[in-house]
Amino acid sequence: MSIPFYGLKEKDLNLIYLSSIESMHCIKVLRHKIGDKIKVLDGMGHIYECEILDDNYNSCTVKIIKSDFIEKNKFNIHIAVAPPKSTDRLDWLVEKIVEMGAYKLTFIKTRRSIRKKVKIERLKKIAISSMKQSFNPYKIIIEDMIAYKDFILGVKEKQCVIPHIVDKKRLFISKALESDVNTCAIIGPEGDFTVDEVNLAVDNNFKTVSLGNRRLRTETAVISTIGAFNFINGF
Amino acid sequence: MSIPFYGLKEKDLNLIYLSSIESMHCIKVLRHKIGDKIKVLDGMGHIYECEILDDNYNSCTVKIIKSDFIEKNKFNIHIAVAPPKSTDRLDWLVEKIVEMGAYKLTFIKTRRSIRKKVKIERLKKIAISSMKQSFNPYKIIIEDMIAYKDFILGVKEKQCVIPHIVDKKRLFISKALESDVNTCAIIGPEGDFTVDEVNLAVDNNFKTVSLGNRRLRTETAVISTIGAFNFINGF
Repeated sequence: MSIPFYGLKEKDLNLIYLSSIESMHCIKVLRHKIGDKIKVLDGMGHIYECEILDDNYNSCTVKIIKSDFIEKNKFNIHIAVAPPKSTDRLDWLVEKIVEMGAYKLTFIKTRRSIRKKVKIERLKKIAISSMKQSFNPYKIIIEDMIAYKDFILGVKEKQCVIPHIVDKKRLFISKALESDVNTCAIIGPEGDFTVDEVNLAVDNNFKTVSLGNRRLRTETAVISTIGAFNFINGF
Repeated sequence: MSIPFYGLKEKDLNLIYLSSIESMHCIKVLRHKIGDKIKVLDGMGHIYECEILDDNYNSCTVKIIKSDFIEKNKFNIHIAVAPPKSTDRLDWLVEKIVEMGAYKLTFIKTRRSIRKKVKIERLKKIAISSMKQSFNPYKIIIEDMIAYKDFILGVKEKQCVIPHIVDKKRLFISKALESDVNTCAIIGPEGDFTVDEVNLAVDNNFKTVSLGNRRLRTETAVISTIGAFNFINGF
């Protein structure tokens, strides 16, 4: 159950040059030596079994000895979320979204959002770490903060849902979600969406859904929604 | 969306005496005064609307002016889990289990468990805080660490599942779980169960299930399992 590394295969060569961070972790922290076998993910579906050729801790070179390819899920879930105020909860949210296998993550700025900015590069690092930890062969796409309205008007997915607690006219998510279709779910901040925000989403093809009768924190609502999508699609 | 307090109604009286911790929070932190309205949960299904009679910050007294009762879900999920090593992850796990609405939580000691003890009183406080935050009207039962074998041999629920990644003979959880039946799910430590542990569970009426093709951390596996139970039962 060793954790794989992340790296890209060189074009026309059977080699991977690990980045300085990955090399440091491989050689200094885990004390791998020339000849040791490691696994490397490229975030594009490949799982490589590799042998270390050069154990330089700044740029470790490995040779690919076996290559597996995992097909993408046929249908994806894209999560748009108002990031929680707490940095710990935000980090954790990104980790879990990757673990649960979402395809894309976009941060949105809503009326009641407290956090107006995210450190996107930092979160991308957390996402890669979680990708390796969970052996998820696909790297998530993370998009920087966008205004709520712009997001709603530009959404591409065929099935869109907005879990919220603004009013009572909501279908329970297990009744609302259809399988076998690309899905976007938009999750509000602490304090939820405003009525106007929910109405704008409904006018733009979003189904309003309920995740049950408890008040979920933002990060719990996200996990619960991806879980429902996975459940219904068998992922 | 104010967060309720936790307290028990006095027998034959329409009063609640808040504990010193709750009183301190109500009067000192949130600066409530005599005559202010607050909500109080008793963890047994009641949601009380109350008026503050005495704003003593060590023992605040409130009068019940309205009482709602929320019926229990007809079917429950009991989670038995090998606690994660990291205290942060353990705290977070308890918070999320309560948010997702599980009925009971038992800690188990497995072959590959790193953490052999939990501070049960501390976790009970986190559970109450999460109960209030998520407006869950029922207090979770938390049981102290028990050996894996003893737990398996004593389990009471009719439907038992063991998500794991030991071998390939597992049904995806959406195919394995039946609705409308009390359920127990047992979740292994980082490094998973041993083959012997899985076999013992199977011999004792546990179905082996898969949560998808990613390696989930302990806390993610727990949330994913409760999510599946809620999904199938419409909770």
